[in-house]
Amino acid sequence: MDGFARYFPILAWGRTYTSETLTNDLVAAMIVTIMLVPQSLAYALLAGLPPEVGLYASMLPLVAYAIFGTSRTLAVGPVAVVSLMTAAAIGNIAVQGASEYLAAAMTLAFMSGLILLALGIFRLGFLANFLSHPVIAGFITASGILIAAGQIKTLLGVKAGGNTLPEILASLAGTLQDTNFITLAIGAAAVAFLFWVRKGLKPLLLSAGLRSRTADLLAKTGPIAALAVTALAAWALDLGARGVKLVGAVPQGLPPLSLPAFSAELWRDLALPALLIAIVGFVESISIGQTLAAKRRQRIEPDQELIGLGVSNVAAAVTGGYPVTGGFARSVVNFDAGAETPAAGAYTAIGLALATLFLPPLLAYLPQATLAATIVVAVLSLVDLSILRKTWNYAKSDFAAVLATILLTLTMGVETGISVGVVLSILIHLYKTSRPHIAIIGQVPGTEHFRNVLRHKVDTHPDILSLRVDESLYFANARYLEDYIYAAVAKAEDVKHVILACPAVNDIDMSALESLESINSRLKDAGVEFHLSEVKGPVMDKLERSGFLPHLTGKVFLSQHQALHTIRGDRFAHQGSVAV
Amino acid sequence: MDGFARYFPILAWGRTYTSETLTNDLVAAMIVTIMLVPQSLAYALLAGLPPEVGLYASMLPLVAYAIFGTSRTLAVGPVAVVSLMTAAAIGNIAVQGASEYLAAAMTLAFMSGLILLALGIFRLGFLANFLSHPVIAGFITASGILIAAGQIKTLLGVKAGGNTLPEILASLAGTLQDTNFITLAIGAAAVAFLFWVRKGLKPLLLSAGLRSRTADLLAKTGPIAALAVTALAAWALDLGARGVKLVGAVPQGLPPLSLPAFSAELWRDLALPALLIAIVGFVESISIGQTLAAKRRQRIEPDQELIGLGVSNVAAAVTGGYPVTGGFARSVVNFDAGAETPAAGAYTAIGLALATLFLPPLLAYLPQATLAATIVVAVLSLVDLSILRKTWNYAKSDFAAVLATILLTLTMGVETGISVGVVLSILIHLYKTSRPHIAIIGQVPGTEHFRNVLRHKVDTHPDILSLRVDESLYFANARYLEDYIYAAVAKAEDVKHVILACPAVNDIDMSALESLESINSRLKDAGVEFHLSEVKGPVMDKLERSGFLPHLTGKVFLSQHQALHTIRGDRFAHQGSVAV
Repeated sequence: MDGFARYFPILAWGRTYTSETLTNDLVAAMIVTIMLVPQSLAYALLAGLPPEVGLYASMLPLVAYAIFGTSRTLAVGPVAVVSLMTAAAIGNIAVQGASEYLAAAMTLAFMSGLILLALGIFRLGFLANFLSHPVIAGFITASGILIAAGQIKTLLGVKAGGNTLPEILASLAGTLQDTNFITLAIGAAAVAFLFWVRKGLKPLLLSAGLRSRTADLLAKTGPIAALAVTALAAWALDLGARGVKLVGAVPQGLPPLSLPAFSAELWRDLALPALLIAIVGFVESISIGQTLAAKRRQRIEPDQELIGLGVSNVAAAVTGGYPVTGGFARSVVNFDAGAETPAAGAYTAIGLALATLFLPPLLAYLPQATLAATIVVAVLSLVDLSILRKTWNYAKSDFAAVLATILLTLTMGVETGISVGVVLSILIHLYKTSRPHIAIIGQVPGTEHFRNVLRHKVDTHPDILSLRVDESLYFANARYLEDYIYAAVAKAEDVKHVILACPAVNDIDMSALESLESINSRLKDAGVEFHLSEVKGPVMDKLERSGFLPHLTGKVFLSQHQALHTIRGDRFAHQGSVAV
Repeated sequence: MDGFARYFPILAWGRTYTSETLTNDLVAAMIVTIMLVPQSLAYALLAGLPPEVGLYASMLPLVAYAIFGTSRTLAVGPVAVVSLMTAAAIGNIAVQGASEYLAAAMTLAFMSGLILLALGIFRLGFLANFLSHPVIAGFITASGILIAAGQIKTLLGVKAGGNTLPEILASLAGTLQDTNFITLAIGAAAVAFLFWVRKGLKPLLLSAGLRSRTADLLAKTGPIAALAVTALAAWALDLGARGVKLVGAVPQGLPPLSLPAFSAELWRDLALPALLIAIVGFVESISIGQTLAAKRRQRIEPDQELIGLGVSNVAAAVTGGYPVTGGFARSVVNFDAGAETPAAGAYTAIGLALATLFLPPLLAYLPQATLAATIVVAVLSLVDLSILRKTWNYAKSDFAAVLATILLTLTMGVETGISVGVVLSILIHLYKTSRPHIAIIGQVPGTEHFRNVLRHKVDTHPDILSLRVDESLYFANARYLEDYIYAAVAKAEDVKHVILACPAVNDIDMSALESLESINSRLKDAGVEFHLSEVKGPVMDKLERSGFLPHLTGKVFLSQHQALHTIRGDRFAHQGSVAV
């Protein structure tokens, strides 16, 4: 697809829309709606926002994604990690409950949306790749722990605070004596019920004769039962009067149209958080999208996904919402429920619109502890410390990056954690490639093959030093190569020729070229010729363009074997002529 | 060398010190001393410091380097670029002439010294490699332009200011009418004389019958004549009374022992500048050291060089000096004058100590314009815009990094310029490796070789997709590989096998491993087997440790040819069994 249509994937799937697709999408939308109501309310509270903001963020953004997104089944909306990041970003700027807090949330969504749009339009989606898998895994795990810890206060009904794990625990310790035991009972019951729904409901439904898929989907709607029962109990027993915190008055009706705040100071303060939210959200979303798309052999376009998520966030910003992205649980449910096109998302939006019209009177009696229970059960599935063991076994460098990300996220907050994780993975990568594997090689007797002298029995010649470098040459390792060669030549006093074999060199940048020039001229000063062998085509093109080759004291050979043959031949010829 | 002696290279060369070495070192020291006096004074003024600070910084640091440095001929002391960086760093903190300014300069030297020492002790010298050659070349060129522009005010005798090129030019434009024409005459004459010394003096000396090397060295001491003549003229004609700015009273005697300031706020403000000065100084110094060492087939140890420069800077800090590093011109003169060991540096220090004892009365009459002329002539040799043309021809990515470095250094100052240059080179490198070359390959008919289908006539099979990736796999390109494979499989509907050939893959990090796992499981969902071929030994070791291989739907083959042979054989065998 190119041109205009590229930006509107809806034009592609819309053409083949049938009544059968409609039915499938409608069924999926209904199930996702039931699942989204409690999640949206809960995540809004997690972000420190009024509960209805979660519902607002689950309407227009879904319609926007249906038009611009490329995944057929991704369900966007508020998600746990982004909600936590939102709370962290705005917590520094405004007080929860103040109107500035809400305005900052919308502005954050607007800025994230613009960043995503810009990345998509300029095709800069590759920037998200700088977030390595282990770092994002560590970050999500640490976020899950932070989120769960942060809900304990609501489950206990105490007024605690804190943004980092030590702060949260210290604050809880100081307020434990204020525990409201009715709240705790509701919260504990809800947590237990929701865990049972996850593990025990499906087998029960199966034994009741339901088909596996139906049982699966029904189990996903279980949380709504927890909401209904606890709200009913709160109303019947007037628990609000007994110190149980309820959701309280929620405005009835569709989201208001809104505009983000345009304050230079606010934008500057939110710039980094908006960037981090955009990138973390995108990375989460695209991995979910790819997982689902691959199952049906469909494709998603990363750059267009950026645009889809960007428009969704802008849509959230102008309808009283906050940052959104593709959510894992809801997307899987949408997929399993049989959604075939992004239209299912639009129908879900209608479902949620109906919810905002009719639910609020019922929500007033909903205990906040029930929502906290929903969050705890949802995020504990994010916590997976096995990444530490996996990386420890696989590569210590990855382990170091993950450990730093987890510890810093828990102790210094989400922004520091993810930022340091990204910087650390880049530094570790640069460090690894800055000390490439370089082997002194010799000829396997009787063959044209050359191997590491340390690992194989090979022939070498005292006047010829053959080296193979197993990495592209660029600024971070250019000087290392120089050092290595100077050290090797200083040690081997008889050497008259150095041959650098480059079969694994995919690129030579300007710094590395200058290092090759330095090596060439310094070896020349020392009376040593410098040769290259097995240079790849594209690299050779660059070298030819550079003007380096005429100054090369030696030659460029197609193969290491040819290099050795020619140089030794030359020498014999030369000695011969001297003898005559 | 190992253990204790490793940290004291003096123990190695000291043992073979003879009277002949002594003579050679003394001669070299005398010539370098004569050259260093005007340079040290001038660079101190450039750094915004009293002139004697330049002399102080040329004593104990040289002795320290003689003990700890590994280059036989490197001459350390104040240099132009580091002096400019010092002025930029301290200019934000204190006013020139205030005692805080001097204290900050010493603190900066102390911090740079500690940073260099730490890098050396923890063997982190590779960090300096993140400064790519083109970026450092662009930075030095831009610094040279900034320095030269900044001296114009002294050559004109006006009071102008500014830290960036636009500021300097604007400030000059506003003060041009105050030009002191006597100052201008002295400055212009000195500049003309010094340029002539560079170009014209040596031929003259040669025609007078001197040997080439002697003529060369004498020409290098020419600047001292400019100092003597202009100081004499200023004294005789009482130019100070006619508005010509003179150096004025310089304290006579050895440098005072001093301690850097230990203020937390100052240290925080100077942390980044100290790091940048340490790294830029180290990179300059080591490339000079390596150039000279290679000519005599000697070695320098980068990590020990860090220690040598670190101790030198600490030495500068405790003797009233400011940041120092190895200087190009003086090191070359030292080398050419026949210095054989670092002891020559210690003798130079003695020479400069004598200068601080006896010169100050003469310096009082030295016009500042003469020193400015010394600086201008010295730094204009740093300016080399050809790096722009070279990088433009070689690689646009390097060009972009250089251009950004030059423009930002000129317009935003040295710290921004060098910082953005470093970050940009890293981002460009990550970008390049984040989109590795991936080729769909086929078999060259009648051979066991496989080549890019786009470049060669090769055989392929509709049910087998063979890909070769020409880059190590790591987090920045892991997702790109996933996207590429999903797109390729989505396009080729008949594909049942994907073979990834890895002859150029030198490493697979945890992110890339997880991408391979995703590819494997998503292809499995789509009914496609995933195979690897030509995996290098160390990479295979990691994969075996990871637990990935048992889940691989396909196999790992030693060669692409074997892969194709086995898969096609399997298929025929399978079809055969069906037929039976």
